Amino acid sequence: MALASRLVDIHTHVYLPRYCSLLRSRTSVPRILTSTRDGKPDDRLLILDHEPSGGRPVGPQYWDRDEKLKFMDRHGIDLSVVSSANPWLDFLPASEARTLASQLNEDLEKYCSDSPELSLSLKRFYGFGLLPLVPEISTDALLESIDQISKLKYLKGIIMGTRGIGKGLDDEALDPVWAALEKAGLVVFLHPHYGVDEKAWGDKNNGHVLPLALGFPFETTIATTRLILAGVFDRFPSLRLLLAHSGGALPQLSSRLASCIEHDPVVASRLKHDARWYLGKLYFDAVAYGPEELGFVADVIARSERFETGGSTHAPATGVDRTLGSRRMLFGTDHPFFPPLTSTEKWKSVVENLEAIDAVAGWGQAEKEGVRGGNALSLFNLV
Amino acid sequence: MALASRLVDIHTHVYLPRYCSLLRSRTSVPRILTSTRDGKPDDRLLILDHEPSGGRPVGPQYWDRDEKLKFMDRHGIDLSVVSSANPWLDFLPASEARTLASQLNEDLEKYCSDSPELSLSLKRFYGFGLLPLVPEISTDALLESIDQISKLKYLKGIIMGTRGIGKGLDDEALDPVWAALEKAGLVVFLHPHYGVDEKAWGDKNNGHVLPLALGFPFETTIATTRLILAGVFDRFPSLRLLLAHSGGALPQLSSRLASCIEHDPVVASRLKHDARWYLGKLYFDAVAYGPEELGFVADVIARSERFETGGSTHAPATGVDRTLGSRRMLFGTDHPFFPPLTSTEKWKSVVENLEAIDAVAGWGQAEKEGVRGGNALSLFNLV
Repeated sequence: MALASRLVDIHTHVYLPRYCSLLRSRTSVPRILTSTRDGKPDDRLLILDHEPSGGRPVGPQYWDRDEKLKFMDRHGIDLSVVSSANPWLDFLPASEARTLASQLNEDLEKYCSDSPELSLSLKRFYGFGLLPLVPEISTDALLESIDQISKLKYLKGIIMGTRGIGKGLDDEALDPVWAALEKAGLVVFLHPHYGVDEKAWGDKNNGHVLPLALGFPFETTIATTRLILAGVFDRFPSLRLLLAHSGGALPQLSSRLASCIEHDPVVASRLKHDARWYLGKLYFDAVAYGPEELGFVADVIARSERFETGGSTHAPATGVDRTLGSRRMLFGTDHPFFPPLTSTEKWKSVVENLEAIDAVAGWGQAEKEGVRGGNALSLFNLV
Repeated sequence: MALASRLVDIHTHVYLPRYCSLLRSRTSVPRILTSTRDGKPDDRLLILDHEPSGGRPVGPQYWDRDEKLKFMDRHGIDLSVVSSANPWLDFLPASEARTLASQLNEDLEKYCSDSPELSLSLKRFYGFGLLPLVPEISTDALLESIDQISKLKYLKGIIMGTRGIGKGLDDEALDPVWAALEKAGLVVFLHPHYGVDEKAWGDKNNGHVLPLALGFPFETTIATTRLILAGVFDRFPSLRLLLAHSGGALPQLSSRLASCIEHDPVVASRLKHDARWYLGKLYFDAVAYGPEELGFVADVIARSERFETGGSTHAPATGVDRTLGSRRMLFGTDHPFFPPLTSTEKWKSVVENLEAIDAVAGWGQAEKEGVRGGNALSLFNLV
């Protein structure tokens, strides 16, 4: 049972050196702007439109595996399932995206395979690969990419944004992609980048707060809801989708969603189940920064069984077993984002998420160890 | 203690006859389109852009007080605090909005004062008035409107959207308005209308589901967050703000919001407290359609005290007392929206919200009766 107490980070990003070179060569967002300040190198990463204060400072923690290992060791993280950070290949023409996806998948495989061993059978690093999900890409190219990733020993899934090949993830053109991902058993890590239209944020200077705190989770919520409404989980019931930031706002809006669907017979008739049922088929990272949030997500997962038949007579039962819900929740850090403002031993963003797991009311040691690492080892077939 | 078991609906809308006349006279949204179908009158309400199926059928339940009373009697609702429905006066030029606000406030006062008695000291109806919150309105006109409402015996608050006088609710120009509302003790019912940019919904036919299920709560979440970030609750600590749809996604995103603020020293330094503290100063309707959602909102209200000093050392305690949180939550129906699809004795949307209150784990009879009506009677000084 030693494995059960491993700490596994499934939400941790890298800009691989090859990708950084591309970002440095660019003159528009996304880019890395290289300059000097007071005679020292001052690299700035610009990935969102209108980045405040000239972009965020970037350094080796964004691309250097040794820095990631130091971060892991400092926080007691045994194993990381690393993913490329947003905006991935979204901004590239199809042919370039296809070539780069293939190269970055090989790079990430090497990043993992060369990494230190955690045990006789485990490395410190595993990875989520990339598909060239951009407009005008061919289905064949996407399937070829899935085939490549499924043959790379240390890649256990893919990360993707919400645009698909231009029309979002509810595009039927992606059905062959879902089918291939389901068949290959690859976990799909759904991650936001675009937020919602920035006009919503008004004209006050609130830094990154509104797009990051609200826009990111809204985007994940919308994308997942559109997947539900398009019947993707009905057609691909074994697809394993992992949602960033604990599913954003989807858990809290899921009963409202179910009610809105039920009041629209055209939409309701397309779905096999009440909307809340699908939430029990998803996986959620535990990157929500608070124990009440995590406990609630577990409740929403656990209650999903009440909604299996899709009917309209689901009288709510008092209480759900949130220990059951914990099994689909997985610790993450969002490293290297949210670094501490001052030099400290541990990152507050990481400590908060660990403390949150530890403080969920109703979770015992088994549930907490599961969320800290055991669930990830199971999900990625590492046990 | 008879009052404690009253059922009070604080989220119930009306289009007053004077407002309906205006909507019928208009040729663009918002409007009521009057036509006939199979020889019968077929009135359609169009309040959102691109309404599916030619708008929603409207009838007397939207304007006739007797219909509202029938609905209340059918569902055992003793008392309703009625509000004009979106989009209020948002689309009118300032002078017209000012005149109409005054007239509609008088109309609503009469709607309430002429209503049947519930007891010696209570009527069946109370109301939220309207301010002419439109661009180019003068502060004097807004203050005059608040003065009018505060002198109308049956109006206990105001309903407002999120645009303020054009720049949103975080506009400093509204400070005199918040000050006057706070001083008058009027409850501010914050309600969405615009959602977020519709491009987010994609091009599939999902009826109203995405803008209503997600867009509405996103809008409330953004507006309330912008109020927090602008320091409005620091400057007006006695302002009583009631959030539609249980605060949308704000509870679930509140720890993430706090973390994002803490990682942005410019924003953090402006606020007196951790973002989560402010949620304990708000009121939430209980229109969330599920018991897990309601219990979670109560948890988030209850935990707010942990975050009072605004520091960065709030170790999460295991468990919160969600009975405390219940005191700021109030039953609502959203009538006359979400009508049943077929003729039934009771509206499913109402039954779901009542069942949800009844099924919240950890709430006893006192908490349930509070959310069903006791909290509303206290908030509106009706006891």
